Amino acid sequence: MREVYQEQLGMLTDVLGSMSAMVGTAMERATKSLLEADLSLAEQVIDEDSLVDEARSRAEEYAFGLLALQAPVAGDLRSVIATIHAAEDMERMGDLALHVAKAARRRHPNAVLPDDVAAYFAEMGRIAVKLANQVSTVIKTQDIEAARLLDEVDDEMDDLHRHLFTVMMSPDWEHGVATAVDVTLLGRFYERFADHAVAVARRVEFIVTGKMPSR
Amino acid sequence: MREVYQEQLGMLTDVLGSMSAMVGTAMERATKSLLEADLSLAEQVIDEDSLVDEARSRAEEYAFGLLALQAPVAGDLRSVIATIHAAEDMERMGDLALHVAKAARRRHPNAVLPDDVAAYFAEMGRIAVKLANQVSTVIKTQDIEAARLLDEVDDEMDDLHRHLFTVMMSPDWEHGVATAVDVTLLGRFYERFADHAVAVARRVEFIVTGKMPSR
Repeated sequence: MREVYQEQLGMLTDVLGSMSAMVGTAMERATKSLLEADLSLAEQVIDEDSLVDEARSRAEEYAFGLLALQAPVAGDLRSVIATIHAAEDMERMGDLALHVAKAARRRHPNAVLPDDVAAYFAEMGRIAVKLANQVSTVIKTQDIEAARLLDEVDDEMDDLHRHLFTVMMSPDWEHGVATAVDVTLLGRFYERFADHAVAVARRVEFIVTGKMPSR
Repeated sequence: MREVYQEQLGMLTDVLGSMSAMVGTAMERATKSLLEADLSLAEQVIDEDSLVDEARSRAEEYAFGLLALQAPVAGDLRSVIATIHAAEDMERMGDLALHVAKAARRRHPNAVLPDDVAAYFAEMGRIAVKLANQVSTVIKTQDIEAARLLDEVDDEMDDLHRHLFTVMMSPDWEHGVATAVDVTLLGRFYERFADHAVAVARRVEFIVTGKMPSR
């Protein structure tokens, strides 16, 4: 019984690992499409979001199978539920990459971002991809120390996000209100992407330690 | 066994019903604090968000108890998992009300919103509260027709949200970039609140019919 449980949990974990890789790639491409006004790349992210949704359904099906056939209790039960939450977080990360790609498509062939904020988004994109990769590692290795590292990287994202507001609020801002609205929403998409990555890492920490980190 | 399951599911449903009432009240107060620059009301929403979080934990504990003791399968299992998702959606609705209240507090004693957009937010607030109340009804009555009505109300929210962008993009906009940034984020909070309300209604529909509505 225990072996079957571990084997099935392993399959579930594999799906979660592939989801984090997918949403990392999606955000990498979405950022590139945004910075380079690359329509076909934006279209690709938009088309492939359904793959993330399918992976999420697959993860839930594995979890349902585990719950129905193994009827886990206590810590095992909480672990399975944590994987369901993690899959939901990652589906949302995929949606946020999709929103970025849609913004790039909406303004095409114009660039969404003026040059002086593009650098911020290049950096926010880099951090988002880094977080998604760290999530993959954490899911694969169940390394708690690695899970905790995500908080620091998320702090970098929050710093950048705050700076972005400073740039828009400055009297030197000369790109008008429409661009500020775009930048505000896009900034929020990256920040939320990072929040969900941290949430997934915490759920893995919970699965390993049995305690939800409170920090 | 079946009776115990139904009784425990009933308790879980009661917690969900009280959550929807709580987040409706939170959004009502947050909107008032925003429109009237009412600091003490904003503080109340901020303080009381922890009650929503606690209700969510309670809902999850009931769900864990149900899964561990009753080991439901098939439709029953999916129903219990749907309640866990619904509780997560409503916790998020509480967070979004919290964000609105924090915006009101941040700008106090100044008003966040210029007069010509305040009316939009009064209306978005009214719709958000209406959606939360409809969610309460849907949870209590499990009425599928009532669940479907939320889509129409959500469409009203989306319309208002789009109009808000039109107002900000207009050459007549004279409130500057900083206000546009606030309005953009606040508009997003109301729109997301509505999305989560619709998600909860769909989960109830799933619990009743066994099918996730695809519309």
